Amino acid sequence: MAETADVPAVSEAPEDPAYRQAVIDLLGVIAYGEICAFERLVEDAKLAPTLPDKVELATMACVEFDRVHGLHARIREFGGDPFDAMSPFRESVDAFHAHTAPADWYEGLIKAYVGDGLASDFNREIAAYLDPTTRDLVVATMEGTSHSEFVVDRVRAGIAEDPRLGGRLALWGRRLMGEALIQAQRIAADRDALSALLSGGVDRPGLDLAALGRMFTRLTERHAARMADLGLEA
Amino acid sequence: MAETADVPAVSEAPEDPAYRQAVIDLLGVIAYGEICAFERLVEDAKLAPTLPDKVELATMACVEFDRVHGLHARIREFGGDPFDAMSPFRESVDAFHAHTAPADWYEGLIKAYVGDGLASDFNREIAAYLDPTTRDLVVATMEGTSHSEFVVDRVRAGIAEDPRLGGRLALWGRRLMGEALIQAQRIAADRDALSALLSGGVDRPGLDLAALGRMFTRLTERHAARMADLGLEA
Repeated sequence: MAETADVPAVSEAPEDPAYRQAVIDLLGVIAYGEICAFERLVEDAKLAPTLPDKVELATMACVEFDRVHGLHARIREFGGDPFDAMSPFRESVDAFHAHTAPADWYEGLIKAYVGDGLASDFNREIAAYLDPTTRDLVVATMEGTSHSEFVVDRVRAGIAEDPRLGGRLALWGRRLMGEALIQAQRIAADRDALSALLSGGVDRPGLDLAALGRMFTRLTERHAARMADLGLEA
Repeated sequence: MAETADVPAVSEAPEDPAYRQAVIDLLGVIAYGEICAFERLVEDAKLAPTLPDKVELATMACVEFDRVHGLHARIREFGGDPFDAMSPFRESVDAFHAHTAPADWYEGLIKAYVGDGLASDFNREIAAYLDPTTRDLVVATMEGTSHSEFVVDRVRAGIAEDPRLGGRLALWGRRLMGEALIQAQRIAADRDALSALLSGGVDRPGLDLAALGRMFTRLTERHAARMADLGLEA
């Protein structure tokens, strides 16, 4: 595997206790995130203006939920209990959703699109630090959800009809990003094993501060690109 | 195919306009029923006492929803539009759910179990009147949902802990069956093609009144057996 300054070689050894705990944490937070995303999407689907729109959002929701089983299975392979693994993240993920309840159909669409995009970008960044089997699983959780054409189409049509909508949704996108960062920081502060996966350990290279900064810049730039696809300022 | 008095030979010809309309109706009502069952299960999952219980109910919900796509595809093969096909049934199915909103976790479990069982029994009865491809699809929509072990286990444990629960849930089961029959009768009265599928047409044998009565008896008996499995009087 080619190495770059930002992507150190991965320890392939799932026996390392710190690595095992980090993976259990990571899969736990992804799995709990998927369960909540599922529930919220189904809730938001109630705001759908038409039955076809509702079916589209419910389809997105089920794709999220279907991944939970694979994530749980891998947690068990690492000797963890899936529900114990998810529990440390309930407060942060629930808080994210409590602070970002969409007020209407469009806010729900943007939350689905932006939230899914952010999660995919983060998973892609962290995948480089994982053993091949876990990496494939995490990468697979990013496939088949974006439904970006559907969301972009609906949001652009909504703004064309009511241009004031654009300003409100741009603010909404910024709020989503802000809340996501607040909760991510809280999780990083609370879960040492998980943050050590990124920052390295005694026998494992990690990201230095400059590399962490570049990763943060990439996540922010991709968020801005998604907002631009929707016709919105980031 | 062996014929019995209750199961007349099926016209294999999907060209018959009355048959086509009947199948479009049937798949439309099943698909809309699945969409609503999905939404209600996810709603009921919020009442789950634990996260594993919630995940179990959400899994049942997604199994229901996944079938919608196959039903829609077959409606298109019959020249119908899936959303037009579902729309005549929205009022009845929505009314069923509006009149049977579960008050707690146990009522939600029983509704899922009894509703799914009734739908499966009805589909199994009507499958005999369908062309092979549609029949296989309708039969497939009954697979993999019952989750009966989970529901039976939870309900029996609940009653063991609070015996008064049994009386309330028995009443609830009767109310579910009553509401289902009211809405089924309304649909049969409104949708001539669909009822003609059961009652026969000029060139197609159907159920006479005695055979319809026997079918009704079978559905009621199976409902009673399910209630007994839960430890409840029907």
